[in-house]
Order: sequence, then C-alpha cells, then structure tokens
Amino acid sequence: MTELKNDRFLRALLKQPVDMTPVWMMRQAGRYLPEYKATRARAGDFMTLCKTPELATEVTIQPLDRFPLDAAILFSDILTIPDAMGLGLYFAEGEGPRFKKPLQSEADIRQLAVPDIASELGYVMDAVSMIRRELDGRVPLIGFSGSPWTLATYMVEGSSSKEFAKVKGMMYEQPQLMHRILDVLARTVIEYLNAQIEAGAQAVMIFDTWGGVLTTRDYKDFSLEYMQQIMAGLKRDHEGQRIPVIMFSKGGCQWLESQAEAGADALGLDWTLDIGLARQRVGDKVALQGNMDPCVLYASPERIRQEVATILESYGKGSGHVFNLGHGIHQHVDPEHARAFVEAVHELSKPYHT
Amino acid sequence: MTELKNDRFLRALLKQPVDMTPVWMMRQAGRYLPEYKATRARAGDFMTLCKTPELATEVTIQPLDRFPLDAAILFSDILTIPDAMGLGLYFAEGEGPRFKKPLQSEADIRQLAVPDIASELGYVMDAVSMIRRELDGRVPLIGFSGSPWTLATYMVEGSSSKEFAKVKGMMYEQPQLMHRILDVLARTVIEYLNAQIEAGAQAVMIFDTWGGVLTTRDYKDFSLEYMQQIMAGLKRDHEGQRIPVIMFSKGGCQWLESQAEAGADALGLDWTLDIGLARQRVGDKVALQGNMDPCVLYASPERIRQEVATILESYGKGSGHVFNLGHGIHQHVDPEHARAFVEAVHELSKPYHT
Repeated sequence: MTELKNDRFLRALLKQPVDMTPVWMMRQAGRYLPEYKATRARAGDFMTLCKTPELATEVTIQPLDRFPLDAAILFSDILTIPDAMGLGLYFAEGEGPRFKKPLQSEADIRQLAVPDIASELGYVMDAVSMIRRELDGRVPLIGFSGSPWTLATYMVEGSSSKEFAKVKGMMYEQPQLMHRILDVLARTVIEYLNAQIEAGAQAVMIFDTWGGVLTTRDYKDFSLEYMQQIMAGLKRDHEGQRIPVIMFSKGGCQWLESQAEAGADALGLDWTLDIGLARQRVGDKVALQGNMDPCVLYASPERIRQEVATILESYGKGSGHVFNLGHGIHQHVDPEHARAFVEAVHELSKPYHT
Repeated sequence: MTELKNDRFLRALLKQPVDMTPVWMMRQAGRYLPEYKATRARAGDFMTLCKTPELATEVTIQPLDRFPLDAAILFSDILTIPDAMGLGLYFAEGEGPRFKKPLQSEADIRQLAVPDIASELGYVMDAVSMIRRELDGRVPLIGFSGSPWTLATYMVEGSSSKEFAKVKGMMYEQPQLMHRILDVLARTVIEYLNAQIEAGAQAVMIFDTWGGVLTTRDYKDFSLEYMQQIMAGLKRDHEGQRIPVIMFSKGGCQWLESQAEAGADALGLDWTLDIGLARQRVGDKVALQGNMDPCVLYASPERIRQEVATILESYGKGSGHVFNLGHGIHQHVDPEHARAFVEAVHELSKPYHT
C-alpha cells in the first residue's frame, strides 16, 4: 500500500504529536456540494449511489478536491446492514429511509442472522478498495458502521422515529428479544468493520446516533455494552498499522466516563458539551473528536473562525483532538463557509502544537 | 378561595413532608384520552380549544376524573404568546404549528413588543379562573409558559424545527438581535405568568423544550439567563401562599448545577438522567420533578410498576420529588397504563415518607 502523505488524523487519534489539529466533517460528501448533487442525480437513487463503487468513490473524493481535509470517509449509509439482512431498505421521496419488512414479530427476530458479508455487502468493500486506490495516500480513509442500538431503532420502527415507541416498547417489555437483535447486530458489525479494515479502511467510526434517547441504565445495557463487544472483536492492527476506533453516542455526553472505558481510541462529541471539560473528564484515556455546532456554518466566515478559536482554546495544548462538527454538515450550508471552517482549524491550531 | 383538599404537590415542590410522592403527567389532558378527542372534535380546531375557557376547563379536568392525579395543569399552548404578539399562529393539519408572520427581518424584531396581556391573552386568565372554580380545591392548578429561547425558536423558524438553522444562524451572527427578542419575551413571560398567578395558578412551570440544543455557553447566555430574569420577576407569594416555580430544560441535564442556582423551586428532569444522581448534584437547593421515560407506558402495567419502583428507590427517602414522565405522555398510550403509573407512584412511595 502507498505510504500516507498526511497522517495527522491517525496521529491525533493515537495522541501522537501533530503539526496542527486535523479536521474533517461528518457528512462531508453530501448535499451541500453541487458536485455531490450532480453525481447523486446521475445515480438516480440514493442506494444506487451507495451500491456503485465508482460513484461512491467519486463522491467520497469530492470534498477532498475542494478543501484541505485530513481524512476521507467512505460514502455509504448505516442502513446497509439491515438491508443486507433482508429487511428491504428503500427511500420514499423526501421521507427518509423505510423498511419493507421491519422486525415486527418474535418470529422475525428469531430468524435474524448475521448476513454473508462478502456476498451481501461486497459492494462496500469494493468501494473501500477503490477509494484507497484513488486517494493514493493523500489522507487516511475512515470506514464506519451504525451501532447495534441505532440500527435496531430503524429495524424495529421500520423508519426514522421521534418517539421510539415500538423499539422502546420492546426493550421495556421483552428485553430478551431486544438483546437477541443487538447480539446479532454486534456480531454483524464486527465482521462488517473487519472486512472494511481488510479492504483498506485505516480507522473506523461507530455512529450511535440514538444512544442519547435512552436512560442511563438502558444506555449501558442496550447500547454501550454492544459497542464494547464490537471494540473487543475488531482488528486493531492491520498490516503493521494500528487501526484507531472512534465511538460517537450523540446526546450521550453525560456518560463520557463510561464511554472512555469501552475500548475506543477516541470519542465523538456533539456540540452541547464544552470540549475542555470533556478532556478533563476523560483524562488520557481517549482522544476526542468534535465539536462545533454545525449551525455555526450558517454564520459568516469571521464568526466561524471565532468559534474555531474558542474550541481550540478550550481543548488547549497538545495532541488528541480531531476537529469536526458535532453532527453532520447541513445541506443548506454554503461550501465557502465549510472552507473557512477547515482553513481556520489548520491556521489557528498551530500554536497549540509547538 | 376554597382550601386545598390535596396539597401534596405544592408541599413536595417546597420540600415539606408528604404522605406519599405526588404525581401528575405532562400533557395529561391530551390525545391519549378519548374524552379529550371528543372535546377537541367539538371545538373544531386546536386554537379554539385553547381560546374557549369552557372547553379548556373541560379538558383540563378530564384526566382528574379518571386518575388520582395530584395536580391539574392549565390546558393551553406555549405559542399563545407569539400569537398574542401578532405572528399569526395556525396549525396546518398534521403538520404542527406555523406562523404566518415569522420574525424574518431586523425591522420585524425592532417592532416586537410586550403585548397587552389582559386584552390579548385574557382568555387564558379566564380559563385559569374557571378551572379553579371547577376544581373547587381538589388539587392545585399549574400555570405555564414556554421559555424565551424556546418561544424564539418557533418565532424565528416560523414552525417546528429539527436543525434550528435560522434561529441559530441569527444567534451566532447577530446575537444582539437575538437578545432583543429574548428580552421582550422574558418581560412578556413575567407579565403572563404573574397574570396567571393572579387569576389562580398555584404553581407555574417554564418549559424550555429546546434549551438542550445549545452549547454550554449559549445555554447560559441565551436560555438560562432569561429564565433567571423571569424567576426574579415572578410573584412568588400570592394571597399568603408561596407560588412554587418549576423550570424544565429538556435535554439539559449536564447543566443541572447552574439550573439549581437560577431561582426555581424545582427542576424538571427528562428520563436520561438517573434521579438519584440528580438529587446528589443539586443537593438541598431545589426539588426535582420527573423522570420516567414516557415510552415505559407502552409496556405492561407490571413493567410500569417496576420502573416506578426503580425511580422511587433511586430518589430515596424524604420529600422534594414530584413524580412525572420525563416528557409529555404519547398519544398512543393506553389510558389504563397511565392509571397503572399513577396508582403505582402512590402505592409504592408510602414507605419513603415514613
């Protein structure tokens, strides 16, 4: 494999010295970019974009051609897993993801099994390999998966949800069924991420988008527990390189101390928590990724620089910080504001790394 | 005024001894009750229900006729204030609240003024007086308002929002305009809640539904600061009775210590935080209200009792806890499950008050 020209991102995740704070943006390949919308239109529908390695590669690279980002992230969707499990993922126009066959009965759940990753999700590994070739060592490539709990919310609800009535009803009333789903999902995520690592992912991230809707007890039992199992099952070294793992429970900042014990190299932070306080709370155990409010990108470049400066100051000196937004970049953000953000991180962070 | 037959709720808010833990449910007058739906249908539309004191009284009392609740809450909507300010509130079928004239320009904001409460919101005070007469001392009546920040999100966005792009864009780019809106709203909320107290509200609650979407710094500057101003401006005693104030920032549990200093008698808790830990964190400064996940009501009565028992045990012995859900009751909950919840709180809490 080609040597990395820019390994700032990987070094920061492992708390090794860097020249400046690395930066990338969740959903950096997305609808705020006109070139993304053009490729998306050519693809026809969203899942074709995910399932065609050439197109997934194209959109993965697009933001890197615009901005001096320090990492690329595989273009895909967390729902590829339930799709591979036969739940029939589709996207109703303007309505978000839906499943033709959500998990409704105990029989549905008893039948759930780890899919054959190579045959059902081979298109993801093809995209990973192709992106690595295309990147040619510019920056590292991040692979990813949803967390078992987050995937289960979609699989039981059958769509996005605000109230999580079905999935929580099952969790409270039939916890053993919920644990069965989560166990199958955890084993699947391990195989899926290990396959991504073998195909070339140089770091992996677990998105626990809905961990924050749980009680403290249920977060530990139904979300964190399974992410911990995943950490233990992942290939942490591949071809002589350490593969860092980032874990991100959105809305879960009150549980940061337990998260820091789960075996991840870094924790994602949403924007509600002060990153300096987060650093105090986790100590030397993990690196941190985050945490600017994505809405700051609606403000002027000057205001964006100011907010970047505030977060850098709050984190303070030394490595262990990957700058990012606290959630995916919004579709109506001006790409020039994203540029101002990325450039500000590099420029303003140098004094913190001398 | 008639003497209260059941003052458990008020006593718990003031941390005075009680025989059992008082309980009520946010949105207890709501769509999960068939009798509510019947009145709502007779009213025609939602705002007519709010603006007709006889109908508002009827739905306020309905849950009390079913369950042994320890408090009634005025049936109304937090958006009565922007409606009174001339923003033209309406409810598009199945779409939530909208404003005909959201705050879009600096001129809109400069023109914003405290409305004449007596003429524009007299219907609310009429409802409060009528409910008090109808209650005849059964239980205390809670008045309420949205927090300035929460009201501002609707007024600037023009509707409900997920991303808060407009209101946060303004907050980040033109903070002085946002402060102007919040200042007018804080002064309005003070007058509005004081009018409710004079009309007969025996406790008041401030719903900061969207405080939790802010950064730590912005929560303090744009949400908590204005609630603190409100606390300082409210009539805390009326006709010889102390009027307790409950403050509830949903999703704001990381800021509990600052909330406890804001001048409220009690803090609302969503379900994510363990209430025993919350009690340790606030000490003797405030009472606590909450905090069962409303989704537990989808489980069986046995499971509901179990969860009630867990929360009671976590809070521990002594007064200072008003049992509630961590958010409004969902519309698809079986009313018999709500009954199981209310009855379990009374029955299982007695040993904690000996």
